[in-house]
Amino acid sequence: MSTVIKNGTVVTADLSYKADVLVDGDKIIEIGEGLSGDTELDATGCYVMPGGIDPHTHLEMPFMGTYSTDNFDTGTQAALMGGTTMVIDFALPSPGQGLLDALQMWDNKAGRAHCDYSYHMAVTWWSEQVFDEMKTVVEDRGITTFKHFMAYKGALMVNDDEMYASFQRLGQLGAIAMVHAENGDVVAELSAKLLAEGNTGPEAHAYSRPPQVEGEAANRAIMIADMAGVPLYVVHVSCEEAHEAIRRARQQGKRVWGEPLIQHLTLDESEYFNTDWDHAARRVMSPPFRNKQHQDSLWAGLMSGSLSVVATDHCAFSTEQKRYGVGDFTKIPNGTGGLEDRIPMLWTEGVGTGRLTPEEFVAVTSTNIAKILNCYPRKGAIRVGSDADILVLDPNKEKTISAATQTSAIDYNVFEGKKVKGLPRFVLSRGHVSVTDGTLTSREGHGEFVKRPANTPTNTALSKWKDLTAPRPVERTGIPATGV
Amino acid sequence: MSTVIKNGTVVTADLSYKADVLVDGDKIIEIGEGLSGDTELDATGCYVMPGGIDPHTHLEMPFMGTYSTDNFDTGTQAALMGGTTMVIDFALPSPGQGLLDALQMWDNKAGRAHCDYSYHMAVTWWSEQVFDEMKTVVEDRGITTFKHFMAYKGALMVNDDEMYASFQRLGQLGAIAMVHAENGDVVAELSAKLLAEGNTGPEAHAYSRPPQVEGEAANRAIMIADMAGVPLYVVHVSCEEAHEAIRRARQQGKRVWGEPLIQHLTLDESEYFNTDWDHAARRVMSPPFRNKQHQDSLWAGLMSGSLSVVATDHCAFSTEQKRYGVGDFTKIPNGTGGLEDRIPMLWTEGVGTGRLTPEEFVAVTSTNIAKILNCYPRKGAIRVGSDADILVLDPNKEKTISAATQTSAIDYNVFEGKKVKGLPRFVLSRGHVSVTDGTLTSREGHGEFVKRPANTPTNTALSKWKDLTAPRPVERTGIPATGV
Amino acid sequence: MSTVIKNGTVVTADLSYKADVLVDGDKIIEIGEGLSGDTELDATGCYVMPGGIDPHTHLEMPFMGTYSTDNFDTGTQAALMGGTTMVIDFALPSPGQGLLDALQMWDNKAGRAHCDYSYHMAVTWWSEQVFDEMKTVVEDRGITTFKHFMAYKGALMVNDDEMYASFQRLGQLGAIAMVHAENGDVVAELSAKLLAEGNTGPEAHAYSRPPQVEGEAANRAIMIADMAGVPLYVVHVSCEEAHEAIRRARQQGKRVWGEPLIQHLTLDESEYFNTDWDHAARRVMSPPFRNKQHQDSLWAGLMSGSLSVVATDHCAFSTEQKRYGVGDFTKIPNGTGGLEDRIPMLWTEGVGTGRLTPEEFVAVTSTNIAKILNCYPRKGAIRVGSDADILVLDPNKEKTISAATQTSAIDYNVFEGKKVKGLPRFVLSRGHVSVTDGTLTSREGHGEFVKRPANTPTNTALSKWKDLTAPRPVERTGIPATGV
Amino acid sequence: MSTVIKNGTVVTADLSYKADVLVDGDKIIEIGEGLSGDTELDATGCYVMPGGIDPHTHLEMPFMGTYSTDNFDTGTQAALMGGTTMVIDFALPSPGQGLLDALQMWDNKAGRAHCDYSYHMAVTWWSEQVFDEMKTVVEDRGITTFKHFMAYKGALMVNDDEMYASFQRLGQLGAIAMVHAENGDVVAELSAKLLAEGNTGPEAHAYSRPPQVEGEAANRAIMIADMAGVPLYVVHVSCEEAHEAIRRARQQGKRVWGEPLIQHLTLDESEYFNTDWDHAARRVMSPPFRNKQHQDSLWAGLMSGSLSVVATDHCAFSTEQKRYGVGDFTKIPNGTGGLEDRIPMLWTEGVGTGRLTPEEFVAVTSTNIAKILNCYPRKGAIRVGSDADILVLDPNKEKTISAATQTSAIDYNVFEGKKVKGLPRFVLSRGHVSVTDGTLTSREGHGEFVKRPANTPTNTALSKWKDLTAPRPVERTGIPATGV
Repeated sequence: MSTVIKNGTVVTADLSYKADVLVDGDKIIEIGEGLSGDTELDATGCYVMPGGIDPHTHLEMPFMGTYSTDNFDTGTQAALMGGTTMVIDFALPSPGQGLLDALQMWDNKAGRAHCDYSYHMAVTWWSEQVFDEMKTVVEDRGITTFKHFMAYKGALMVNDDEMYASFQRLGQLGAIAMVHAENGDVVAELSAKLLAEGNTGPEAHAYSRPPQVEGEAANRAIMIADMAGVPLYVVHVSCEEAHEAIRRARQQGKRVWGEPLIQHLTLDESEYFNTDWDHAARRVMSPPFRNKQHQDSLWAGLMSGSLSVVATDHCAFSTEQKRYGVGDFTKIPNGTGGLEDRIPMLWTEGVGTGRLTPEEFVAVTSTNIAKILNCYPRKGAIRVGSDADILVLDPNKEKTISAATQTSAIDYNVFEGKKVKGLPRFVLSRGHVSVTDGTLTSREGHGEFVKRPANTPTNTALSKWKDLTAPRPVERTGIPATGV
Repeated sequence: MSTVIKNGTVVTADLSYKADVLVDGDKIIEIGEGLSGDTELDATGCYVMPGGIDPHTHLEMPFMGTYSTDNFDTGTQAALMGGTTMVIDFALPSPGQGLLDALQMWDNKAGRAHCDYSYHMAVTWWSEQVFDEMKTVVEDRGITTFKHFMAYKGALMVNDDEMYASFQRLGQLGAIAMVHAENGDVVAELSAKLLAEGNTGPEAHAYSRPPQVEGEAANRAIMIADMAGVPLYVVHVSCEEAHEAIRRARQQGKRVWGEPLIQHLTLDESEYFNTDWDHAARRVMSPPFRNKQHQDSLWAGLMSGSLSVVATDHCAFSTEQKRYGVGDFTKIPNGTGGLEDRIPMLWTEGVGTGRLTPEEFVAVTSTNIAKILNCYPRKGAIRVGSDADILVLDPNKEKTISAATQTSAIDYNVFEGKKVKGLPRFVLSRGHVSVTDGTLTSREGHGEFVKRPANTPTNTALSKWKDLTAPRPVERTGIPATGV
Repeated sequence: MSTVIKNGTVVTADLSYKADVLVDGDKIIEIGEGLSGDTELDATGCYVMPGGIDPHTHLEMPFMGTYSTDNFDTGTQAALMGGTTMVIDFALPSPGQGLLDALQMWDNKAGRAHCDYSYHMAVTWWSEQVFDEMKTVVEDRGITTFKHFMAYKGALMVNDDEMYASFQRLGQLGAIAMVHAENGDVVAELSAKLLAEGNTGPEAHAYSRPPQVEGEAANRAIMIADMAGVPLYVVHVSCEEAHEAIRRARQQGKRVWGEPLIQHLTLDESEYFNTDWDHAARRVMSPPFRNKQHQDSLWAGLMSGSLSVVATDHCAFSTEQKRYGVGDFTKIPNGTGGLEDRIPMLWTEGVGTGRLTPEEFVAVTSTNIAKILNCYPRKGAIRVGSDADILVLDPNKEKTISAATQTSAIDYNVFEGKKVKGLPRFVLSRGHVSVTDGTLTSREGHGEFVKRPANTPTNTALSKWKDLTAPRPVERTGIPATGV
Repeated sequence: MSTVIKNGTVVTADLSYKADVLVDGDKIIEIGEGLSGDTELDATGCYVMPGGIDPHTHLEMPFMGTYSTDNFDTGTQAALMGGTTMVIDFALPSPGQGLLDALQMWDNKAGRAHCDYSYHMAVTWWSEQVFDEMKTVVEDRGITTFKHFMAYKGALMVNDDEMYASFQRLGQLGAIAMVHAENGDVVAELSAKLLAEGNTGPEAHAYSRPPQVEGEAANRAIMIADMAGVPLYVVHVSCEEAHEAIRRARQQGKRVWGEPLIQHLTLDESEYFNTDWDHAARRVMSPPFRNKQHQDSLWAGLMSGSLSVVATDHCAFSTEQKRYGVGDFTKIPNGTGGLEDRIPMLWTEGVGTGRLTPEEFVAVTSTNIAKILNCYPRKGAIRVGSDADILVLDPNKEKTISAATQTSAIDYNVFEGKKVKGLPRFVLSRGHVSVTDGTLTSREGHGEFVKRPANTPTNTALSKWKDLTAPRPVERTGIPATGV
């Protein structure tokens, strides 16, 4: 049973052109004019793009004895409704827990996914076991990206020597290092000080994690990655300080990518000053929203290529969960939603304003991600042989974002009231038509895990350069006897 | 009569994969495994890439009553021998000469080309005629890139108001501005001072055009382009100062591209201090070679994407011609060769060291150029339907560059003695096998002119943003009467 | 008849300490504890500082057939009331007019000054006469700073080659180059475009001179000064772009100073969007006010030393004069007041907030200016032997700035309504008590011209470095015969 | 018994002028023309400057069971011979040792000093005792600068939370934080890796501490100081990376000073590649010497003011001590000499080339140091009432630096063979003529400890700004009940 997408304009990271796209089973099997198939989807006036890939989600993430509210069922439904056809979640071992053990837990949850998915692995502690299991994770399980938390002291945080050891191991395995960049020591100190001074509300969350604290950590991670010889991916870059560190590194030829979130691109810190506690608390995430200057910096990064991809860090907690932090901002669960809104918000604010070309839009929402994370061109491409993860975007379709009409399981939406123009007409997940004009026809459990091989061209090139420039001993004769 | 390239690894700007490539007539008609054709080219152990595009050549360029020695016949042969299958030359009207008139002169020369070509148009003076003809050049002739010389005072140089007027016109036409960025006033003053002080040798050419002078002009052109609302392409970026200006602009979301030359990436200013006058004079070009710091900057630019393409500015003058400048460095014809050497030099110094991945190599030698100059995917792609301009590069083939064995018509080579590893096994120009393992089988006149449409996605996006942010008058009531 | 300032805290650029200051005639003759004199001024609770020096005023400046309203009489009264005891005005030759001739005109006006003064000379055209007279101006007249307008095309603007020639001459004379940095060509083009599009109001003045246009010119002037080998002083630095160019230059060891104005430090572009035409037009000056980001940049420059002094560019036109530009913003006389407000505004916004120490305040309002312009320690110092130009500032004295109570001759004040804390208790001009608690007792004609010698230590050091690194010819034998 | 210095040119950080200087006892009592005294020192043709202050020495520092060879006796003799009249040493508590206890140890050693001295206190561990004793150290002992080692893991290194706690305490006490900026974790990892790979020679010391590692730590310390609200002084800034972090901070209005060493300004990493093991090992210090680009950066920093002072980190180990590290570079005692050479080397390479004016030279060798460390104008000034710590520098006196003729107790000199021009004719320490034309007449025990008060103007201003911009809680009504 084949499906043809007719009369649209194919838009890839490379170029745009009129063509029909023929899908059979999971795959795109032909692209051209005048194609036909068993089912016909009319894309007249629409753009036919690779489905969005969200490289940063936390579905059903354990937290304080509960879990983030969107799980692989509701979360991936929200993703599909928003034109996203693949999510990459984080397998988070507790300190002391083995990587493979944690993976098993994530596998148990992910079976419900409506779209394809993969994992990043988190390194939350260091030991010979971790060192050993990394190889299995990379080579057997096809997970090649490992996240390190520089924040969340006393919980997930790793120190510089642990990071160095892990990064070096990743370099050897041909894998990629990721960091959550915030100085956990300083955040802890500032938080304690704020609480002591009576700054207990959600705005104090923002006070406790100023841009400098993020920029510092990004800069530190970049240095450690450079010393260890591994490419680095900095998640949720929210501010000029971190972006500047990334730009500076790239200008020195270092292999570093930055990922801003749609939230930081479009929302600002004034949200935390809202006099409604719930309003402010619902926006609590790390890093927090910043001001307009930082937004401008992030947009320019996407335009110039110093930032590579747009994500959501979707980690949705309900208002009830947020209220754990009444009276103590450090207890507000960190996280917001966005899976359903990333594509329409970025199209509206990016392509709609001329800051991004349609091709750049595809690059940062899908293709660049697939390339960096090494599942391209299976994902991230409209190409014969690629998975039929396809977004047919109608640039004239409009709506106002509202929790009242969203798919996500939580009871609010941080983009509430935003008008967006540019919405999915169809969304296909590995060939299955999962969304039609706002109606969800996805299937629980349809999603499959996507293995990603190690040793990207970037890894190979970096290793070659590091070997070429490695320290060499000076040849000496007549070395004196030791003075001791 | 079809041709199949068998058993190679296709390398594009996007990805690498094992596949055969089938060519019929001018075009690539199939890519896949197990293909066959009338003729079979064995690419075992080789990379099958888009042929190189050199976005910056001056073939048979008029100069001081003579012409640059490589013309469209010898120059394009050299190009093909070096794996380059398309050149973009500059049509240079004399001040006072119409654009269409100049184009006619270039058409007369270009008929001998062995590979495809296009032109950039130069704007060397300003008038209503120029303004009017720009439209014809863009819309009828398919030439959408217009170069402005900020140097060569009294000859090709245009002033800031002329640049602004021209840039604004280009913005309206959906075309792209280019600049040769050096402050012509200051170069003229420094040159006169150096001559007056007895600095007459070729090294004074370098003294007369220090990096600051280039950086200043790049910075100025960027501002003017931003004010006029047009994308900007800076040719032959040779130094950190100009690169910095470009990076800074890009970090502000401006649409600017930079083009380093293979010479500046690999050769340095010490060449001018060679005690052999001929040696030094043969390296005289503008901008001159710089030092190692500048080289590092350019390489990092290619790695990070702040610089987009690699060119040659091939403008080959013989030793005899260079000697016009004995006793007065300002009379040494400016220009060096490189068409034949760009690909092997960049592969060796870039991919061979790990500074570039093979995919990045393809991007900067071909695909990015085709995209920016808007002839992608006809050019710059290994893709069904694309022109069969193909380079089959053997990464194990080595040689030492020497004038003695080169194709270029001049009597020396600025890369003399350099060992390169990575050379063409086959080069196809629109399907015609033009080079086989160092043997040239190209055809004079085979090359065709390539029209390039206006209104790239970048133009469209930039115009949208400029409209959105255009100055708006303040609504006022009760404006006072004038004070006069 | 001696005067002693008792019980105050002397504050200099160096340090603060309790001491009395004894003045006899024009000079400070003793500093110490327990001094007595014929007259006693009580400085209890006050800071005793060098009087302010405003390095940038235009008193009675000819413009469009009239003159700026504050002349050397009213202007220097306003200066004294605001704690400023020396002004440096600009002698502006018309294009074609000799420098000495222009100086004569300025001498005619300046005789009315109530406080000491000096001039900068403007270079508004270039000729052998200008070249020759520069020497006289420097060596005989003691005027060592020469301003070049990069804006005001068709009037005062000079081109790059004229700037280079003038700068080189200044380098030889041991003098200092100054620039008004805005790209006059682009301003003219933007202005014409804005008018053509119906943007005729005062806000279009700001649109016509965006920060990029200033930054570009600053960057260009810096390069030209570097090539010519002369220190550079950039007047009225209003934006990050120009400041960035200055910082970049200084980070390369170039000798460049930047002068922000008190207006740009404290007022922003929203003034131009005021719906009252007069309000907006009264704020029209070049460069225009900028936004808060630019203000932050300027403040940080003062704190870090990348910007050196604070001026006013006092050039006061009445509302009636401003209305020349009703219907055509290009006809609004450019200029605002500030002489009376610089000291209290900077103290309030700088020292009052902790952005500046009191010592830094003295440096940027007085001492640095005197050093750069080479009249230190005659001016800019509380030091035995220095001129008794003294400001006794009462940090607890407050007022609200208002045109209704000002000394300046114009009918409005751009700081109207600002509350300031920190006002003069006494102001002495060469020993004469000119202000006592808001009452003016200055004398018309008391002011004297201050000669300033050439060859500052900075000039000497720069020349030494330039000589050391000057281009040297390569020694060659066997230079070939010319090819012609 | 008074002493007059006749016929010299007084050079201060402010200005230069002809004057005699009269000294009585410890103090300068008069400056002027035609002075006379009991003893007359002829300064004809010489510059009369404040004696040098070296803000960074380690005399008789305990190390591996021995001590750095120059102690307060020989070290201060070397200082005086080199024109330096005050040294500031570091009191280093062992981890676990109280601050006051450590001070006692240093007092025991310092009694032999020939010139005045002060201490910085090191914070090498953190506890309530340290917290408490800091107050005593500041308020009773007059030591207001506290150094933190970010390197030397397992020995002196403190972590980020310890640094934050200490910095915050210093902010409250009105003191100043100092850091040795190198990432100790990464240095330890790199060192282990190098040793494991057979890189055991002194050049591996440089490999183990690349510029990035220093830049990272400087950047981190700056952030922590900003969060804690304390001014920061970064010792031995050796590279562009650290300098860039400092510049960036200063450009944001942060209160940060950088101290390059004379070694890093004039020597480069090629020293480590010397095939003589002893030669290389004698140059082992942390941070190591860098390349010429870094030197250029440091010089430009002194010229522009982004770096404030020049020190030596004098910590002299003999060749025999250096040989402890034969076969294992990590065992080579870190440290070099320089006390005797700082002034002549900086004069020669700075003033002699035109990179520094004589006034800037005084600023960076003396006055700036005294101001930052808050002993100005007792020290660092030629001023009535200041201590008579005076250097009479003869700009025409030359020598070639050699261990054979040096005063320092070690057996080599890292500047061996350097020709310097500009040497002391006389050096006075608190009025005592200690050096006359290369002959030492200093007195053991003449040196006194100099107390330095807290709460510099910079501290006060910074605290004001931090209070003004401190986080404020949002006023909210109707906060919900907690969700738990």
